[in-house]
Amino acid sequence: MTELRFSKQHDNLTNYMASEGIRLALFQDFEGMRDPTIRWMTRHPGDALLFVPSNIIDIPILIPWDVNMAQQYAKDSYCHIVPYTDFERNPYKAIKAVVENLNIPAGSRIEIPPTTSYPSFLRFVDALPDHDIICREDGIHFYTQQMRAIKDPEEIEIYREASRITNDVIAELEKQIRRGAFATEVDVALFIEREARIRGCEGTGFETLVAGPKRSFGIHAFPTFTGEAFGTPGLSIIDFGLKYRGYTTDVTLTVAKGPLNRTQERMLTLVEKAYNLAVSMAKEGLATRELALAVDAHFEKAKKKMPHALGHGIGMEAHEAPAIRSRSDNEWILQQGMVFTLEPGLYDPVHGGCRLENDFVLTEQGLEQLTKAQIIRIPE
Amino acid sequence: MTELRFSKQHDNLTNYMASEGIRLALFQDFEGMRDPTIRWMTRHPGDALLFVPSNIIDIPILIPWDVNMAQQYAKDSYCHIVPYTDFERNPYKAIKAVVENLNIPAGSRIEIPPTTSYPSFLRFVDALPDHDIICREDGIHFYTQQMRAIKDPEEIEIYREASRITNDVIAELEKQIRRGAFATEVDVALFIEREARIRGCEGTGFETLVAGPKRSFGIHAFPTFTGEAFGTPGLSIIDFGLKYRGYTTDVTLTVAKGPLNRTQERMLTLVEKAYNLAVSMAKEGLATRELALAVDAHFEKAKKKMPHALGHGIGMEAHEAPAIRSRSDNEWILQQGMVFTLEPGLYDPVHGGCRLENDFVLTEQGLEQLTKAQIIRIPE
Repeated sequence: MTELRFSKQHDNLTNYMASEGIRLALFQDFEGMRDPTIRWMTRHPGDALLFVPSNIIDIPILIPWDVNMAQQYAKDSYCHIVPYTDFERNPYKAIKAVVENLNIPAGSRIEIPPTTSYPSFLRFVDALPDHDIICREDGIHFYTQQMRAIKDPEEIEIYREASRITNDVIAELEKQIRRGAFATEVDVALFIEREARIRGCEGTGFETLVAGPKRSFGIHAFPTFTGEAFGTPGLSIIDFGLKYRGYTTDVTLTVAKGPLNRTQERMLTLVEKAYNLAVSMAKEGLATRELALAVDAHFEKAKKKMPHALGHGIGMEAHEAPAIRSRSDNEWILQQGMVFTLEPGLYDPVHGGCRLENDFVLTEQGLEQLTKAQIIRIPE
Repeated sequence: MTELRFSKQHDNLTNYMASEGIRLALFQDFEGMRDPTIRWMTRHPGDALLFVPSNIIDIPILIPWDVNMAQQYAKDSYCHIVPYTDFERNPYKAIKAVVENLNIPAGSRIEIPPTTSYPSFLRFVDALPDHDIICREDGIHFYTQQMRAIKDPEEIEIYREASRITNDVIAELEKQIRRGAFATEVDVALFIEREARIRGCEGTGFETLVAGPKRSFGIHAFPTFTGEAFGTPGLSIIDFGLKYRGYTTDVTLTVAKGPLNRTQERMLTLVEKAYNLAVSMAKEGLATRELALAVDAHFEKAKKKMPHALGHGIGMEAHEAPAIRSRSDNEWILQQGMVFTLEPGLYDPVHGGCRLENDFVLTEQGLEQLTKAQIIRIPE
């Protein structure tokens, strides 16, 4: 089943390349330039170059930083593995060697990642002056993002399992919170980390955020968690994701411990209404910008402003396609197979913050809620 | 003292800009495009644009994603704070507005980060067609990297404190390891995380890597830590850094538990020799490439190959200037004030891996070892 999936990906890519006249595509996954497409294609977890030739007979070439790791993870995937040290760990030397090796004729179009910096783009051009170096946001890398945005049945099964584990951890968390088992933010974060790893997760999908009432005003608390008190009167936030077989969930719980003042009560009500509004609207065919604008309008009516996007796709990255935000350049449409978050929130420097975030998948049957985070109200 | 430091940074930058004819410089710190220079300049921890005008009278403009956070952290720094939502969280709108607001005349040179992607570079050019958009690797951003590579006395004091905490955690770790207190990799990683946070660290500087004998063959273990056994016979690796007041340490301990075979013994000896060679050579004025080449040659004599760089600068990023590697494009020279790692290692898919990494600062008195990681040998 998995092999089929990879071979389907490869077919899709080479077809796309043929239609665009692209002879060779480069993917890069390095610090500061992450692209899990390489893992998605080869199962190698990261730090590598991947060259995909358009010719279906030419086998893709994986050039890992850690060749032992690649030989373990990518051994069953359709690619040659060549250590990066063979090219002095230099991407310009690597591309030159690959082009020579595959006899790619002068004048051919070679596509490099759209995240390539302008100075690096110039170096690729220097390395291959007789070839046509393409670097664009709407090319093959965007095409793979679109492919990755639509999860296939195997990926959705992974998400159901990842969500089941996430929900177990949420239930365990709520139990411990109601018992008053956590004194500090650190306690909460390390509890999540341990529960994740012992349940077979690769880890957390991003640094867990735990903010007690003093620090929950920050959209993303800084530092991410500290020795400060957690769950004391006021609003506390826990934002975490569990990474399972490469895919991450992403949920946010707010713990509202009484006594709350009227501003805090109003923030909770507004966020819950925004969340329900978003859930009720999310349907196949809807522009995600419309969804985000509706929630923005809901907050504006109450003279509030949400300082971040309504949600985002999740997958091998904590933030991936589709975007779910009101920015005018957002053209994403909800489609079957998309897995994404909805996460309205409000933040006040005095009264703290409140956010509710869950993960959803859009299937033939409509919107399916995968995770079960909620606002946990605890009386005085 | 701190205020003086920031004002000195600002003077240096505006002088550099004047000498280069740059009228405005943009710094960006966002997911996938991190640049802690913004934190270094303003104390705001991240997710922001920073515009620095060359005119010393024009105050730098900080445009944070989270305005509440910026108002807390950057309140004493020399900048205006304007929320990113004022520009629809769009960098092209922001730069246009700033240029209009500051009356920056047509034809002026405006420098954007060298990490700006080629497609994004084109959008900046579109947004300001009458201005001269500069995007280069050896411009003001490199200049700030060079400034950041030379730590000032206040930063070195922070490093001494961060190292003291790191050494306490190392000592505690060694004690627990010798006691056999850790059954699994998770136990080790969570122990480090807790010890770091309760000692006042912001957290770990990067995801802690803990690999038992089964997984230590990976340069960077994947997943970073699991429920696998730790410290059983063979080679185990712990690689971690503690982040304190924005600055991270970075150390690697190898735990060598007997019985070891001859290959493993030889790897340990070679790595220790490589480490001692590097420490004995590291002096002011030495090209870091020479240092790395000497260590490469040492391993080559033994028919081994180190698959990664010898070391790297540390600071507000886990990897920053200077580079310490043998790549031919490395031109860094060791200078007073540099804080960096030395970390030779060898990895074998069957016998496991071994790395020894410590942090050093170069002062008037020469090389000073800040951290005290070592190869911990435990008899059968």
